Amino acid sequence: MPMKIGVHKLAMASPADTAELRAQLESGAIDPRSVVAVIGKTEGNGGANDFTRALATMCFAQVLAEARGEAVAEVEAAVAFVWSGGTEGVLSPHATVFTRQEDQDEPAGGGRLALGLAMSPDLAPEDIGRMAHVEMVRAATERAMADAGICDPADVHYVQVKGPLLTPARIADAGGRGAALVTQDPNGSKPYARGAMALGVALALGEVKAENVDDGAIARRLELYSSVASTSAGGELTKCEVLLFGNSAAAVGEFRIGHAVLADAIDASAVKAAISDAGGAPVAVFAKAEAAATLRGRRTTMLSDADIHYERHARAAVGGVIASVTGDPAIFVSGGTEHQCTPGAAPIAVIARV
Amino acid sequence: MPMKIGVHKLAMASPADTAELRAQLESGAIDPRSVVAVIGKTEGNGGANDFTRALATMCFAQVLAEARGEAVAEVEAAVAFVWSGGTEGVLSPHATVFTRQEDQDEPAGGGRLALGLAMSPDLAPEDIGRMAHVEMVRAATERAMADAGICDPADVHYVQVKGPLLTPARIADAGGRGAALVTQDPNGSKPYARGAMALGVALALGEVKAENVDDGAIARRLELYSSVASTSAGGELTKCEVLLFGNSAAAVGEFRIGHAVLADAIDASAVKAAISDAGGAPVAVFAKAEAAATLRGRRTTMLSDADIHYERHARAAVGGVIASVTGDPAIFVSGGTEHQCTPGAAPIAVIARV
Amino acid sequence: MPMKIGVHKLAMASPADTAELRAQLESGAIDPRSVVAVIGKTEGNGGANDFTRALATMCFAQVLAEARGEAVAEVEAAVAFVWSGGTEGVLSPHATVFTRQEDQDEPAGGGRLALGLAMSPDLAPEDIGRMAHVEMVRAATERAMADAGICDPADVHYVQVKGPLLTPARIADAGGRGAALVTQDPNGSKPYARGAMALGVALALGEVKAENVDDGAIARRLELYSSVASTSAGGELTKCEVLLFGNSAAAVGEFRIGHAVLADAIDASAVKAAISDAGGAPVAVFAKAEAAATLRGRRTTMLSDADIHYERHARAAVGGVIASVTGDPAIFVSGGTEHQCTPGAAPIAVIARV
Amino acid sequence: MPMKIGVHKLAMASPADTAELRAQLESGAIDPRSVVAVIGKTEGNGGANDFTRALATMCFAQVLAEARGEAVAEVEAAVAFVWSGGTEGVLSPHATVFTRQEDQDEPAGGGRLALGLAMSPDLAPEDIGRMAHVEMVRAATERAMADAGICDPADVHYVQVKGPLLTPARIADAGGRGAALVTQDPNGSKPYARGAMALGVALALGEVKAENVDDGAIARRLELYSSVASTSAGGELTKCEVLLFGNSAAAVGEFRIGHAVLADAIDASAVKAAISDAGGAPVAVFAKAEAAATLRGRRTTMLSDADIHYERHARAAVGGVIASVTGDPAIFVSGGTEHQCTPGAAPIAVIARV
Repeated sequence: MPMKIGVHKLAMASPADTAELRAQLESGAIDPRSVVAVIGKTEGNGGANDFTRALATMCFAQVLAEARGEAVAEVEAAVAFVWSGGTEGVLSPHATVFTRQEDQDEPAGGGRLALGLAMSPDLAPEDIGRMAHVEMVRAATERAMADAGICDPADVHYVQVKGPLLTPARIADAGGRGAALVTQDPNGSKPYARGAMALGVALALGEVKAENVDDGAIARRLELYSSVASTSAGGELTKCEVLLFGNSAAAVGEFRIGHAVLADAIDASAVKAAISDAGGAPVAVFAKAEAAATLRGRRTTMLSDADIHYERHARAAVGGVIASVTGDPAIFVSGGTEHQCTPGAAPIAVIARV
Repeated sequence: MPMKIGVHKLAMASPADTAELRAQLESGAIDPRSVVAVIGKTEGNGGANDFTRALATMCFAQVLAEARGEAVAEVEAAVAFVWSGGTEGVLSPHATVFTRQEDQDEPAGGGRLALGLAMSPDLAPEDIGRMAHVEMVRAATERAMADAGICDPADVHYVQVKGPLLTPARIADAGGRGAALVTQDPNGSKPYARGAMALGVALALGEVKAENVDDGAIARRLELYSSVASTSAGGELTKCEVLLFGNSAAAVGEFRIGHAVLADAIDASAVKAAISDAGGAPVAVFAKAEAAATLRGRRTTMLSDADIHYERHARAAVGGVIASVTGDPAIFVSGGTEHQCTPGAAPIAVIARV
Repeated sequence: MPMKIGVHKLAMASPADTAELRAQLESGAIDPRSVVAVIGKTEGNGGANDFTRALATMCFAQVLAEARGEAVAEVEAAVAFVWSGGTEGVLSPHATVFTRQEDQDEPAGGGRLALGLAMSPDLAPEDIGRMAHVEMVRAATERAMADAGICDPADVHYVQVKGPLLTPARIADAGGRGAALVTQDPNGSKPYARGAMALGVALALGEVKAENVDDGAIARRLELYSSVASTSAGGELTKCEVLLFGNSAAAVGEFRIGHAVLADAIDASAVKAAISDAGGAPVAVFAKAEAAATLRGRRTTMLSDADIHYERHARAAVGGVIASVTGDPAIFVSGGTEHQCTPGAAPIAVIARV
Repeated sequence: MPMKIGVHKLAMASPADTAELRAQLESGAIDPRSVVAVIGKTEGNGGANDFTRALATMCFAQVLAEARGEAVAEVEAAVAFVWSGGTEGVLSPHATVFTRQEDQDEPAGGGRLALGLAMSPDLAPEDIGRMAHVEMVRAATERAMADAGICDPADVHYVQVKGPLLTPARIADAGGRGAALVTQDPNGSKPYARGAMALGVALALGEVKAENVDDGAIARRLELYSSVASTSAGGELTKCEVLLFGNSAAAVGEFRIGHAVLADAIDASAVKAAISDAGGAPVAVFAKAEAAATLRGRRTTMLSDADIHYERHARAAVGGVIASVTGDPAIFVSGGTEHQCTPGAAPIAVIARV
């Protein structure tokens, strides 16, 4: 039977606020057992000491567990939670809940929003940021594509991947076994991890050639990239989790997805292009924001500001630009774009109601 | 002879950077004796402990003093310096230097950019934020309008006013004399001071009726406002300084000014309207940014964030929106909009080359 | 039978970290059903958007619920959770878990640590920061003293109170009913709420006379104060919760408590005096920190810093001073001292093993 | 004739405040031509975008230039200005002005405060953080020691060195010449620069052996260190400037200097030891503060806090600890301790009136 993806954007009064989720569960607007993913923004600082993501996951998982009649651990295993901390400028805390159900409807022409999920095996510390990491994401992306019922990579518009980075504990473990790591610096492992995952997506979608990708290319040969990958790394993860969004002729429903590339932080035309690519009224926007020392020939102070982290500056600006086009400040904007578009550019995907 | 206003936007590598100013003085592009005003953004935090404004004034005044063969104090008396701290998001530190000269050219039809300046007398502490403050700015605005050669208030597009607020020393002085003040809180005097100055502009331009303005209206009856005033208050000032920009049939040169009202922080259409009103390619933009707890029905976190001041959030977003339209992140965006447009809205002025 | 209070200080690797709690429950060091209170520091920013306190409560309550075989809601009703956000400088995130059991031991002379708890009824919005608030805390403090088995107020060394403040929702509710409030500003209600609760403690302990306390005195007549109250206000509360610590001749165990008054933020001698008053090796320290514009004749920049909140400056300094005496940076330091010691001074309590 | 060093601690109401300096010049308490160094704290954020240091230098130099009848550039060449930004916690903005004069008095036994100054030649970018950097500081330290009239390294208690780091411009210059640099990261060059300078001091004072110091040791072999060096690196410098303080039998006056080593951030006993070593009432204190992830077995959050830089946490704590001993929060505390004491430890020097 055809796949039907539901898209439910929920406002959040705090990272612990599940009122809109509960209301939609109670009204029947959301069937709890159909929920497969939650992507949202929380109002933390987006840094290492941002615990709003953990709080939101805990609260959403509890509500879903109760509604599904499952244990919290079962929900956390079955539902992908992707939170980005930091609602700078006009950005509004929210969650977009994705449901996936089989449906009786006859697919219309032109394709509808499809969503596939896949998980990699556990990574060893010495795999992180290396070709093993790339390959695991490549394979998971291929499985997620099949899961979404999408055959042509051109129909893929947004691949959200999250996976592990090096932590002090993992570094110590590798040290004890004499295993060499890509870096000894936990924070410094983020670009390698994000980059490896983006290259994995790029390989799966044919955006780069396998012969060009090796350990030395990761986080260095930035001319190799995916235009639809959006990757993040977190110390709490041991596997890579892939959420692949595209349009499938086998899917039904009222949504389509499109994408474009933000040439820089103030590229309003790319926002419009992504909306146009989706072909309807925008419902949810997913973008990356990247800080830059100069912008169209002018110096910015993002990178030299010791008071506000540069990712916060970047999200505030990009969020304002996108909201000025869509009129809705509940946007998913996150940072870190290694191998995700060319340096300075960033991906943007739009889900629209058609 | 007709007035000709020059507009020179200078990039700044730091608040102390005068390299572009010196280069333009040396090349003859700027005649030092024709400089009447500098309006710029510096990369401080924009708060009470932002000393980048003082540093920039000191450095610019020294260079101009040397070029004019005057003492620094003479330059500071003759040239209006207006700096706003805080280059959040994509905003770029810069200074716009205004020159004013008489010119032989024949005025073209339709008016050109004119600039008038005026200074109020010293204010007593008990005048601040009260009708005396309003009246002094009203009178100074009228003089500045005459100085600009503008007769019709409809030709006025941007009135930048800065003036005093209450400081601990002034509060103590008033206390010693038994004089009643609008508030005993230095920081709390800012809305009254900014509001009184905006109402002074509004009275001068006929935007509000005199019978509606009294002490009780200041910072309270926010339905009374000017659409072109942009006011700021600083503890270092004892007088109010008015810079009035408009188009005058008696002026010559290559610039015109226009304005519009930002309905909220993401109102890109108002940016375009202000450019269209100016009628040329935008050269310099001056806007106010105001934080809001909600935006188009969505909650923002600007006002509840204990890490980043709400004015910084607002400037970051508004700066991104304006730059996405003009392509230039060297924009003057400052905060505090009491009686400057309706609550939530904010003025924007654009100087364009025609 | 005599009361025996257990004091268990647990390190926390994050606000969600319950590893040490679980270990002590598993080893039997802590009997889950004996836990009556948790007082701790979490590593948030301590401001309105600090959600680490909620996360810690949720995680601790879940672990205790499982260990007690109760619902989470039952644990939250039975156990007092007091978290202060902000571990600035050397301060270390931790929780001090208090257990209370009956014990067969014969009381030794001189008294041992006793802990009493009491809860007020719900407060109406118009009660907050007013005499009704004072009276409810006075009555609850008296009940807590009885619960602790303490007769002489001189044996009371630390009274931790938390209670409601005005929220936008409560202000709206009162407005709808035409009820007058102490202020219309949610943030501005904190001093009134903290002050009212401190005066309630002061009345219960005979530190101030009832005839001197009225609505007009709250947050204004700061010469009225308690030397042992430590109060905090939060929007999530509707009642006031009192934790009263003292020494009781009827208690047994290995702990005693003492207190002193920090004359200012660098008063190391008061730290030593509190330890000496407790009469043993310090195990847990509870102090308030207050920002000041001047300190021993020198200007500080706490109150004019727009980047770091003044409470964060104050906690960092006071935490360093206390840790330099005790050698342990896991200290409970929180802010806001209205009617808690004289202005500029702050209470410090020490629990020691004797 | 014997050298006599004057020590004048001046409070500052802002980084531009020279009122106390002017008052002391006018009263004759300070002879402007005898001023050789100014060491102070300003209230910026202490980061790359802290411009309060430049502002303070500009303002102090102007006042001294006028009083000395010299050009500002002459003053800046003749007087060493060392400012550290960041007055966290209780720290108070101030400047300590050092004068040096010949004096008729007969030296008393035991030595008095002596101060020697020396400057290195300009460093090429490829020298920075390398042995050339070490050697230049070694030589300058030896000259400063001779200038101070000190023969025995044991009489040296505090060597303040500031010198260049790599800037984007210098990196580009080296790149153009094909010269290899210690790093391509401007910020990353700080540890190498500070470390090289500390090792230069250590060599000059015989604290480490020359055969142990090579390029590979800098910022790596941290078991090599000076106990009296305090070094800082700034992009505005091209040379290294050495201020060497000690006690000399050939000096007269009312001051002596002593030092000790802070074992960690809360080592109050070392503060007392340094005072005792100086042998009088403390007048000025100079210390380094270093962040640490753990302190006496407890985790701190300095290094994981994305809102407040770890150096600010460290200065706040150390400042509180020192002030709790001396009673004076006008203390010079700065960050970055590579090769300055063992890792985790930090130097502290005290000038006392005897």
